[in-house]
Amino acid sequence: MELYEAMSTLRAVRRLKPDPIPDDVQGRILNAATWAPTGGNVQPWRMVAVTDADKKQTLEDLYRPYWEAYIPGYESKMKNMPEEVQASTNRALDAGTYLANHMHEVPLIAVFCFNPGIMTITDIDQPRTSVVGGGSVYPAVQNFLLSCRNEGLGCVLTTLLCYEEPAVKELLGIPEDWYTCAHVPVGYPVLGGHGSISRRGIDEMVSFNSWR
Amino acid sequence: MELYEAMSTLRAVRRLKPDPIPDDVQGRILNAATWAPTGGNVQPWRMVAVTDADKKQTLEDLYRPYWEAYIPGYESKMKNMPEEVQASTNRALDAGTYLANHMHEVPLIAVFCFNPGIMTITDIDQPRTSVVGGGSVYPAVQNFLLSCRNEGLGCVLTTLLCYEEPAVKELLGIPEDWYTCAHVPVGYPVLGGHGSISRRGIDEMVSFNSWR
Repeated sequence: MELYEAMSTLRAVRRLKPDPIPDDVQGRILNAATWAPTGGNVQPWRMVAVTDADKKQTLEDLYRPYWEAYIPGYESKMKNMPEEVQASTNRALDAGTYLANHMHEVPLIAVFCFNPGIMTITDIDQPRTSVVGGGSVYPAVQNFLLSCRNEGLGCVLTTLLCYEEPAVKELLGIPEDWYTCAHVPVGYPVLGGHGSISRRGIDEMVSFNSWR
Repeated sequence: MELYEAMSTLRAVRRLKPDPIPDDVQGRILNAATWAPTGGNVQPWRMVAVTDADKKQTLEDLYRPYWEAYIPGYESKMKNMPEEVQASTNRALDAGTYLANHMHEVPLIAVFCFNPGIMTITDIDQPRTSVVGGGSVYPAVQNFLLSCRNEGLGCVLTTLLCYEEPAVKELLGIPEDWYTCAHVPVGYPVLGGHGSISRRGIDEMVSFNSWR
């Protein structure tokens, strides 16, 4: 698939079939993640690809309460949205609830891990939340998402399971100095899958030489 | 360009010509960034695209000392590397020094900003460095890099200027509640530009169901 077609149609797909992912397809999406750039080419991330039924069920059980707690906050934000946006947001929330109840069925949950001890985190001393460690992981996550889109697989970047990081680490045997930062359920779409996306344009997102 | 060709040949290009970027090309790389997914589709990032000669010179002057301080640490790590890796690392360091002395000439430096106040940072309370805020910015950075590669433009993701965030914010008029997380110099390559990359493969990066 052409690059811009993949990017411009990569949307969150939360209704996923339990159908298995063929080995060659799975190999290509995993490989795409490894191609991403990282600081100093250290590749300070790893993925645990969860396919085991019991472990997927445990991840779903850990995830669901956080999704359910997330909905009311979102619904209160929606009151100020235009009607059209409310409708599409409602559809997204319904799809999120579907995912929260069917995550155990998806063929693959990709758990991205990182090791801050081998990263150069240049904003660590700034008096605000650090994000730079993410610069050596989320490009790999984005490659993975784009590759799923290319292969006709639905997927969505989730981070709610970070609230349950100790339990996830124990479940998957993740060592003490490695942590989790993204959980991507992957599977063939139940409905239309990827398609048109709604984003702010360049005029709102980019300014030249000073803030605006 | 086909998606996997772009991903598998996206390497850091640090020797960049001063030649201008045509408006249509620039529009496409900026647009590609806006397509990226973000938590709750909030798009809590912005880009300041720096093209002004004086501001580029100031960014270079802020950057250079950190690059020069970075080299000795890297050289000491190199002593334990195989000879072949040492040679390629030396070439990368030379290219980095070239960039540190020519950043003022590149046609565009993309400064990515983010606002943690409008992000849901799910790992904020974990007893380790937070990275999840990066999950709503670095996918956009990766789209931008892939798009540069698609357009024949060289580019490299840098974060050293985060050490000088207050000075960068003042230079570009970035508001108090927005911060910086990536600085991407962009231009046509002096040498071969993008090409083969060296990465760990799936066997080292991915395990199934438990750490390994």
